[in-house]
Amino acid sequence: MISVLLVGNGNVATHLHTAFLKADTIVVTQISSRNLKNIPSADLTIIAVSDDAIAEVSSKINNKLVVHTSGGCSISELKNENNKGVFYMLQTFSKGKEVNFCEVPFCLEATNKNDQQLLDKVAKSIGEKIYEVDSEQRKALHVAAVFVNNFTNHLYKIGNDICTEHKVPFEVLFPLIKETASKIEFLSPKKAQTGPAVRKDKKTIKNHLDLLDENQQEIYQLLTKSIQNSVD
Amino acid sequence: MISVLLVGNGNVATHLHTAFLKADTIVVTQISSRNLKNIPSADLTIIAVSDDAIAEVSSKINNKLVVHTSGGCSISELKNENNKGVFYMLQTFSKGKEVNFCEVPFCLEATNKNDQQLLDKVAKSIGEKIYEVDSEQRKALHVAAVFVNNFTNHLYKIGNDICTEHKVPFEVLFPLIKETASKIEFLSPKKAQTGPAVRKDKKTIKNHLDLLDENQQEIYQLLTKSIQNSVD
Repeated sequence: MISVLLVGNGNVATHLHTAFLKADTIVVTQISSRNLKNIPSADLTIIAVSDDAIAEVSSKINNKLVVHTSGGCSISELKNENNKGVFYMLQTFSKGKEVNFCEVPFCLEATNKNDQQLLDKVAKSIGEKIYEVDSEQRKALHVAAVFVNNFTNHLYKIGNDICTEHKVPFEVLFPLIKETASKIEFLSPKKAQTGPAVRKDKKTIKNHLDLLDENQQEIYQLLTKSIQNSVD
Repeated sequence: MISVLLVGNGNVATHLHTAFLKADTIVVTQISSRNLKNIPSADLTIIAVSDDAIAEVSSKINNKLVVHTSGGCSISELKNENNKGVFYMLQTFSKGKEVNFCEVPFCLEATNKNDQQLLDKVAKSIGEKIYEVDSEQRKALHVAAVFVNNFTNHLYKIGNDICTEHKVPFEVLFPLIKETASKIEFLSPKKAQTGPAVRKDKKTIKNHLDLLDENQQEIYQLLTKSIQNSVD
């Protein structure tokens, strides 16, 4: 059995706690990061707190292996005295929505082979997709995730705004959105690119710009230019 | 039985032909748009050709109801003498990949009730999601589709580029991409927005910008600004 201590009570900590409770090989305890007076010992301590709090919380923990769950922070953000690592799950966690951990990529980092194996075992107790990712690679993944998640979601919002303004139901676009997302699994995004930008269809581009507000126009023009430059 | 004549031999015409062949209530014929000397008569003639060719091809057809399949063109682009309409399917069609027409939204436009009912019947013979959409609404949908499909795909490409440059497999991002796309069906994109932009996390934004090339930085900054303005 591996003992896991979870520190934090946000979405990530809560979803992990639920998952570990079901794992045969894990004994899990969860504590709040606001009450660090009596910290239980554990084989693995997972700090799932906001990026800004990682340094302070970790400095108060003397357990043997302490990891954080942040995609945006380096391993060196941890200020505990013993071993350090990272247990980053590249997925969005929403309150109230169950997480299927078999679909979650675990990006693991440790400073020695033993710790890496322990993180591996713990991740495999609840998941299937396990990757070794160092701090530099994780930084790149985190930026890439902003493009494919945060920024993509903002493009959905603009699509929604355009539909609302012109009185068409946004749901008409759902199948297209899903197809666009699933296409990249068998076709590279470069090859999957379609539309007026890549066709250099000036007439359609002009018609589209006429329909947009200033902010939408600016985004339309910049992304169109970027698409055209990427195929030259 | 309804007789349908398909004009064109691109992706849309070919996928429609395959689907209509399986429909009990439809007799379908397909002809090339390059050979318009002997045009068979039909209850419904569907012109599935490039936007630029719609006017010329339609001007040569004397059948009673002629429709085009373009999201970017108005109904007035048709130059036939009899009735006009639009039979627009809002989905990306790829060569070689089978289309599940039950998942395709049909956006139909006609100039009278009889024609609308005929288009409705024909769409229902192969599909399930039927919408009445006029030329103005379709124009808006077409622009919105550029944001949620063409531009989103370009953001995937940038994500892929960042991964390649930093030697992490792009597939690590697939579950996040899928989750982002499916989330909007139960949460509006405005409410689903997460990430450093909406949190106004200046430190992370700076770290991200340091990792990007000039073109990526420009897109990152504009979309970050747009996200921040949309929540103010």
